[in-house]
Amino acid sequence: MLQNFTSIKTLLTTAPVEQTHTVKGWVKSLRNSKKFSFMVLNDGSSQKDLQIVIDATLSNYEEVTKIGLHSSVVITGLVVASQGKGQSVEMQAKSVTLICGVTEDYPLQKKETSLEFLRENAHLRARTQLFSAVFRIRHVLAKATHDFFDQEGYYYLHTPIITASDCEGAGDMFRVSTLPINDAPKTDKGAVDFSKDYFAKETFLNVSGQLEGEAYALALGKIYTFGPTFRSENSNTARHLAEFWMIEPEVAFADLDDVAKLASDYIQFMIKTAMEKCPDELALLSQKNNPDLLSTLTHVANSEFARVTYTDAVDILKKAQTGGHKFEFAAPDWGGDLATEHERYLCEIHFKKPTIVTDYPKKIKSFYMKLNADGKTVRCMDILVPGVGEIIGGSQREDDHGKLLERMLASKLDPKDYWWYLDLRKFGGAPHAGFGLGFERAVMYITGMSNIRDVIPFPRTPRNAEF
Amino acid sequence: MLQNFTSIKTLLTTAPVEQTHTVKGWVKSLRNSKKFSFMVLNDGSSQKDLQIVIDATLSNYEEVTKIGLHSSVVITGLVVASQGKGQSVEMQAKSVTLICGVTEDYPLQKKETSLEFLRENAHLRARTQLFSAVFRIRHVLAKATHDFFDQEGYYYLHTPIITASDCEGAGDMFRVSTLPINDAPKTDKGAVDFSKDYFAKETFLNVSGQLEGEAYALALGKIYTFGPTFRSENSNTARHLAEFWMIEPEVAFADLDDVAKLASDYIQFMIKTAMEKCPDELALLSQKNNPDLLSTLTHVANSEFARVTYTDAVDILKKAQTGGHKFEFAAPDWGGDLATEHERYLCEIHFKKPTIVTDYPKKIKSFYMKLNADGKTVRCMDILVPGVGEIIGGSQREDDHGKLLERMLASKLDPKDYWWYLDLRKFGGAPHAGFGLGFERAVMYITGMSNIRDVIPFPRTPRNAEF
Repeated sequence: MLQNFTSIKTLLTTAPVEQTHTVKGWVKSLRNSKKFSFMVLNDGSSQKDLQIVIDATLSNYEEVTKIGLHSSVVITGLVVASQGKGQSVEMQAKSVTLICGVTEDYPLQKKETSLEFLRENAHLRARTQLFSAVFRIRHVLAKATHDFFDQEGYYYLHTPIITASDCEGAGDMFRVSTLPINDAPKTDKGAVDFSKDYFAKETFLNVSGQLEGEAYALALGKIYTFGPTFRSENSNTARHLAEFWMIEPEVAFADLDDVAKLASDYIQFMIKTAMEKCPDELALLSQKNNPDLLSTLTHVANSEFARVTYTDAVDILKKAQTGGHKFEFAAPDWGGDLATEHERYLCEIHFKKPTIVTDYPKKIKSFYMKLNADGKTVRCMDILVPGVGEIIGGSQREDDHGKLLERMLASKLDPKDYWWYLDLRKFGGAPHAGFGLGFERAVMYITGMSNIRDVIPFPRTPRNAEF
Repeated sequence: MLQNFTSIKTLLTTAPVEQTHTVKGWVKSLRNSKKFSFMVLNDGSSQKDLQIVIDATLSNYEEVTKIGLHSSVVITGLVVASQGKGQSVEMQAKSVTLICGVTEDYPLQKKETSLEFLRENAHLRARTQLFSAVFRIRHVLAKATHDFFDQEGYYYLHTPIITASDCEGAGDMFRVSTLPINDAPKTDKGAVDFSKDYFAKETFLNVSGQLEGEAYALALGKIYTFGPTFRSENSNTARHLAEFWMIEPEVAFADLDDVAKLASDYIQFMIKTAMEKCPDELALLSQKNNPDLLSTLTHVANSEFARVTYTDAVDILKKAQTGGHKFEFAAPDWGGDLATEHERYLCEIHFKKPTIVTDYPKKIKSFYMKLNADGKTVRCMDILVPGVGEIIGGSQREDDHGKLLERMLASKLDPKDYWWYLDLRKFGGAPHAGFGLGFERAVMYITGMSNIRDVIPFPRTPRNAEF
C-alpha cells in the first residue's frame, strides 16, 4: 500500500498542528539557501500548495537542493502553524525522498508557456496552476450536474453513441465502420454493401441523444443524458469541437416554459456550486482571464435570465442597426438564423446577461419542434451567454403524430427510419420538452477561458486527434 | 407550465392525507365496476404505483372506463389513507382527463412479453415494471459512482472517444472516418490517404481511456473516467456489447494493493447504495430473477473479497480437475488465459464470492502492466463475480521508462505513437495503478439480469444498431 499519506487538501483544511505527517506530490518550486531550502509542493488535491521548510542539517540535504521542478517526492515532516499568509499550516521536513526526477527536455521548465504550446503538451498541461484549476472546476460542474438532476428526480440515461439515425437531419456525421475503406463489399448495383458491415447497416456517431431520451422520458417521466456527441463540420473556431459532451434533459408533461426554468435553475446551480467549492480556482481564473469574472457569476447566479422572442429579437437588432450599430457579416432579417454577431449583441450589449430567445421560424429549426399556432414558428429556445454565445438549444417536442409526420416529410426524412420515434406519439404520448447544454461551453463561461480547446482534456478538432 | 403536479413518489413518501393534489402519469391497470373504477397509475418517479378510486358519479365516467393501458392522464383528487397494504395513501379522483390514448397496435398490451420481444421494442420496454426497475437502479449506481469517487477526492475526467492510438494493442476497433467508402483518396503507393481524413490520420473509437487517464493522474493525483468504450469483436454472447460504459480510476502514488482495496470498496458502496435507495426495485428483481439476490448482495457488501494469485488459481483448477471436475473447453494450464469456465469455477464454486485474481503471466497481458520481480508475471488483477464473470481488470502500471519501452517493442507497438505516454515516465513519474470496471456487468450483477442487452437502454451488438 502506497496510499498511506495525507493529502495536501486535508492538511490545509484540518491543520493538524504539531503532528507528523507524510505527503507525496510534485515540486512546484525550490529555493535553496545555506541554512535551509524552501519547497512548494502540490499533489493535485487542491489549488493551494504546501510550503515545506527543509533544514540544511538533513542528511541528504545536498541532494535535495538539486531536485528539479515537477520531480515527484515523498516528504515526512512536522505540521506547524504557517508564518506566511495564504495558508493555515506549513511543514518542517524530517525526511525528503526523491521518487522520480525530470530529464532536461522537460517542456514545462520554460518560464513562458503559451496556451498554444500547452495544447501541444496536453498530456502535461494539467500540471500548471491554470489548467489544474480548469479541470478541477470541470469536475465540480460535472458533479453538480448529476447532483442537480438527481435531486430534481431525473434519471441518468446512457443513450447510444453509435447510431443509424441522424437526429438533426443535418448531416455532418462521422461514419463508424469495420469495412476496409477502399475495399468494401458492393451490392449488385455497385453501392457499398453495408449489410456486410459490423451492424449490418450504415452507422454514425450520434449528434444528440434526444430522440432516444424522449422514449425514456415517456416511460420514466424525467431523464437526462450526459455523454459525448460529435459533429464532423469543418469548424476551426475557438468554440467548436468535433467531440464534445452534452447534457440533455427530457421531461414528460412539460412545455417550453418548464424547461426554460429548468435550464436557468441548472445553470445557476452550477455557478453557485463552483463558487462554493472552488473559491481558490475561481480567484486564479479571475486574475488570469477576467477581473470581472466573480462579480459577473454572482450576478448571473442571482438574477433572472432575459427572455425575448425571436421576432422581438430581430426588431431589437434592426433598431440597433438603424441606430448606427454595424453588423459585419449579416443584416438582421426575419426568417434567417441569428448570426454570432447578432447573438453577441443581444446578450452582451442589449441585455448584458444570459438571454433566452424563443419561437424561431420553423424553416431554420429541426423537424421535431412543436409548431406554434401561428403555423410559422416553433416552440423552441436558444440560451445565449456573454462571451460564449449559444450554450443551450431546446424545445417543446411535436407530440401530434400527424404534424410530426408532415414535418418529417417536409424535411426529406424517411418515416420508416423513425418508426419507433413516431410510435411515441401513438402510445400514451404526452406534451414533453427538453434541451441540450454544451458542457464545454458552460465550462468556458464559468472559468472565463476563451478557447474551447482549453476546457476539455484532449480536444478533437479538424486535423487534430493527438494523444 | 405543465410541471404543476405532485409526483407519485412524493405523494407516497409524504402522505399528505386530506389534501387535494394533481398527478400526471400512465395507466397501468383499470378495473371497472358499476359503482366505481379502480385505476393503477405510474409516472416513473417510483417503482410503486398510485391507486386511484374513480366514482361512477364523475361526469365523464363512461369515457373514463374506456381508457386503454398506458394511456396518459391527468387526475386531480383527494389523498386519503390507503385501505390496502403496500402503500401509505391512495387517491379519490375528482377529475380524470385523458391526454393521449393508445392505438390498437400497442405492442405491450399482450400478456406475455418475452425479454427478446421487449428488446425489439426497446423504445417502450422501460414502461414495464421489470425494466423501469433496472433503469432506476442503473441511475442509482451511476450516481453512486460519482458520489463515491468525489468523496474519495477523485476528479472526473472525460478522456477522448475518438483516438489514433490503440490502448490495448489488441485490435478490434471501429474506424471513425469522413472519407467516402470505396472512393477514398489514395497515396502514390495506392494506400488510403488518411492525411485527407477529418483528423488527418487514421482514427478509431477508444477501447479505454486509461493511457490519457494516467497523464492526468500524474498531475491531479486521482482521477476517474466514466464514459463509453467500444469493441468491434464479433462476440454474440449474453455478456458482450460493442458499445458499453466503463469506469476507470487511475491513482498516482498507488500500487496494486491500493486499487484492489479501492475496487472492493467501490463495489460494496454501489451495492449498499442500491439496497438503501431501491428496496422496491430489488424486491421485484429478486422475485423475477433470483430469490437469493438480496441475501447474496448483503453478504458481498459486508465481507472481504477472496484473493488469489493466478499461479495459485491454476493449482486450484488443476486440483479440481484431478478431483473429477470436468472443464468443457480447456484444461487449466499455467501460461494460458483463464477461460470463462475456469473463472466461474473459481468464484462460483471454489470461493463462492467475488474473487480477485492477481499476477497473471506477462505474455497474456498488456504492455503497460508493471513487471514483477520474477520477470514472468505482471502486477495485475481481474475481479470475477458469480454469475457474470470478469467485471474489473486492473494493474499497477510500468513506471520504469526502459522496461516500458522494452515491453512496447516486444508487443510490436511503435514507440513514436506513444511519445507522450513515455514522457510520463521521464518527467516526475510515480508508481501508479488503476482499473476498469464494466458498468453494465456491474448492473447485471446487482440486478440479477442475465443478459447484458437488458441493462443498457439501447444495446449495440453485432448486426444490431436499431433505435
